[in-house]
Amino acid sequence: MKCDVYAKNCPSRMILDRISNKWSMLILNRLRQETVRFNQLRREIDGISQKVLSQTLKNLERDGLIRREAFPTVPVTVKYSITNLGKTLSDTVYILTHWAEEHYDAVIEAQMTYDERDKA
Amino acid sequence: MKCDVYAKNCPSRMILDRISNKWSMLILNRLRQETVRFNQLRREIDGISQKVLSQTLKNLERDGLIRREAFPTVPVTVKYSITNLGKTLSDTVYILTHWAEEHYDAVIEAQMTYDERDKA
Repeated sequence: MKCDVYAKNCPSRMILDRISNKWSMLILNRLRQETVRFNQLRREIDGISQKVLSQTLKNLERDGLIRREAFPTVPVTVKYSITNLGKTLSDTVYILTHWAEEHYDAVIEAQMTYDERDKA
Repeated sequence: MKCDVYAKNCPSRMILDRISNKWSMLILNRLRQETVRFNQLRREIDGISQKVLSQTLKNLERDGLIRREAFPTVPVTVKYSITNLGKTLSDTVYILTHWAEEHYDAVIEAQMTYDERDKA
């Protein structure tokens, strides 16, 4: 099938929608190098709620991008790691999240210029 | 300033949030190679409403990623093109949107496996 992300009903559009999400990106980026426990993700991804983290992890697991493993400790330890499919995406996600860190000052400057011009 | 996209209040988080959006990605991707008129974007980005397109373009312009030019025809012609700042991002966005097109079948297969396992 010829796939076109510009077509509303193409499955690639649904997948773009799923990955175009700051929480998915931060999780993929965090798991890129190592296996991480649920509670560690919760602590490190500042501002994410337990509910949103659970749901985002579940979606990423269902999409085959990350793997969930539960260990029979008391309480149960749950760890997440990236899959081979996830690895084909995570380098790009890394570049994107770091773009935000490297260019935030240029974006803020542009916003200030725009707002000044808008007021004039 | 040391910038960290994992910190809730870091400006880079706000910027990641802005760019992690399927409509922003599709627009940046479409403008990557050429200047495009508003109506053409509206037609080509299947499923976007006029209101969402206008707002997304306005945000991207305010962020300094795209440039808007109006020409005094009747009716007015409005064209959008990518800025130098936008160009530093658009290659990555291109890779991401094409990842969705290239891997949609693997994602759908993973979803089916997950749903089967969930039912079992």
